[in-house]
Amino acid sequence: MRATVLHAPGDVRLDEIPDATVVEPTDAVVKVLAGCICGSDLWGYRGANGAFDPRTIGHECIGEIVEVGAEVRDFRVGDHVVVPFCHSDNTCAHCRAGFHSVCTHSGFTVSGQAEYARVTQADGSLVRVEGGITPANRAALLTLSDVFPTGWHAAVSARVQPGHTTVVVGDGAVGLCGVLAAVTMGAERVIAMSRHADRQAVATTFGATHLVAERGEAAKEAVMELTDGVGADSVLECVGTGASMETAFDVARPGATVGFVGVPHGVDLSIRRMFDSNVGLRGGMAPVRAYLPDLLGRVERGEVDPSGVFDLELGLDAVAEGYRAMDERRAIKVLLTPEP
Amino acid sequence: MRATVLHAPGDVRLDEIPDATVVEPTDAVVKVLAGCICGSDLWGYRGANGAFDPRTIGHECIGEIVEVGAEVRDFRVGDHVVVPFCHSDNTCAHCRAGFHSVCTHSGFTVSGQAEYARVTQADGSLVRVEGGITPANRAALLTLSDVFPTGWHAAVSARVQPGHTTVVVGDGAVGLCGVLAAVTMGAERVIAMSRHADRQAVATTFGATHLVAERGEAAKEAVMELTDGVGADSVLECVGTGASMETAFDVARPGATVGFVGVPHGVDLSIRRMFDSNVGLRGGMAPVRAYLPDLLGRVERGEVDPSGVFDLELGLDAVAEGYRAMDERRAIKVLLTPEP
Repeated sequence: MRATVLHAPGDVRLDEIPDATVVEPTDAVVKVLAGCICGSDLWGYRGANGAFDPRTIGHECIGEIVEVGAEVRDFRVGDHVVVPFCHSDNTCAHCRAGFHSVCTHSGFTVSGQAEYARVTQADGSLVRVEGGITPANRAALLTLSDVFPTGWHAAVSARVQPGHTTVVVGDGAVGLCGVLAAVTMGAERVIAMSRHADRQAVATTFGATHLVAERGEAAKEAVMELTDGVGADSVLECVGTGASMETAFDVARPGATVGFVGVPHGVDLSIRRMFDSNVGLRGGMAPVRAYLPDLLGRVERGEVDPSGVFDLELGLDAVAEGYRAMDERRAIKVLLTPEP
Repeated sequence: MRATVLHAPGDVRLDEIPDATVVEPTDAVVKVLAGCICGSDLWGYRGANGAFDPRTIGHECIGEIVEVGAEVRDFRVGDHVVVPFCHSDNTCAHCRAGFHSVCTHSGFTVSGQAEYARVTQADGSLVRVEGGITPANRAALLTLSDVFPTGWHAAVSARVQPGHTTVVVGDGAVGLCGVLAAVTMGAERVIAMSRHADRQAVATTFGATHLVAERGEAAKEAVMELTDGVGADSVLECVGTGASMETAFDVARPGATVGFVGVPHGVDLSIRRMFDSNVGLRGGMAPVRAYLPDLLGRVERGEVDPSGVFDLELGLDAVAEGYRAMDERRAIKVLLTPEP
């Protein structure tokens, strides 16, 4: 099959490799109808994760089941499904508590930017799209594989409540989905921190009521001015750097919670600051499967449409250009179609 | 007036100093009917906070109002009151949100181990004891000044829910109050980490269902065995050291929240660990005033009795012995009476 392989920082290629197959009897194999590039893929692409051997890359996809293992009970060949980037049995104590990303049988999609992807724990991981995946709903459904539930998890972790003033730090696809999540949860004012016109436009489409283009101390001042010096009721940290976390704490009112979903790189937390302000911190890898039935319903009923995070669609052949476009911030998020 | 003064690490004395007086028109002066020594007083007593000039010490007390400023409306001379260790206006945005410890007009009791104490923002800070302070209710009421609401705040911050398995790290007076708070909030199993027989006895009296005497890795294993390998639903960190915070995260199940109230000393947080486990952290200085009306009612109705944290009662003259007893762990918490 054709699959995207990260050979070295900056060197991503579409290679021919052996097909994804059923390995465990609880596996399924999905023919990818749409995949995409995640902001977190750029960490490896940019060399921020250190040395590595060449490996397939891509953890987001939706598709059609082409093979199921002998123990898969709830899905059959031909089903159209959303594939959560982290797989889970949906029965262990952590899954039952809604934290599927820490499942005792967790696994991950490793060839989402390819023709086929193996899904472990198929019964516990997959969610069926009853009406089928079509060119019209493809982009919105694809966001359910990771980016929209991750933005949602930031908002859940920050405990966004109706009436809140919510700040979203980060205007990548996750941050934009965080805006949409906070708006959907009833936040009255959603302040998107963004200084890129294209991302500001999506944030506004998603319901952001205010845009703050400043950074650092000036960003804090802007939020304090908007909140009469009080700060935000909830803050979504959707980047993962030390500077973004600093800003998140800067703008949080005492007692607020910072919900974080950006994979942390170079973040030093000050517990003394947390103690003095009573600002909490909560988040991590999103339990996509926990949110999927609810979010899929909202998307299918047309209540939310996160598809606006995709601003570039390419065939799988052009995956290298997709990485370049995201790396150079020419694109917010790239959708890849194996068969254009 | 006679007041406890910390002259240098290990050197605490009862000195004669000028009386506490009304300075601002919003102040009141309270004749201390009972004060006590806090675990956090020991940080300075042990020299852990660096160099300092001699200063009065003691932030917990209850008493009778002997003087009010011209702008105090709700209290008059003769009223018996609980004095929250942190003073607040009870009207600013932070107070209205329940975070009185970050009030824009915050102040602190600085001579609670003395004959008189000045209370700033008297109307916003004090809570009247309608039935009056008596020798019989004195100890329980005194806990409302800091230690019981602080244990309560740990449980609130950790989001203890009915049915939870809750671990309390720390068997000082705050940790023991955390046990009582978790039990009162309906936790089904409360695991107190304690290896001192006297503290274990109080924890059990307060409703702890399990005692874990081990520390470090062995403590984690003990909790994991009690929870079928899952971990605790909520964790109260009531010490403030690196080791205690490490244990708190060790025993927390994915998705749990660690509520912390120990003033942090030498704590390095691992955000990567928080990300991987989705374990949150939340807490800080307790907004005593926020909880006081509720907790005072519970104490007055006899629903909870935190007085068991006091195991030594001394006259103010013997304050130095009180510090020695707590420093050497001969006493859990010392109650001081200016007029024995």
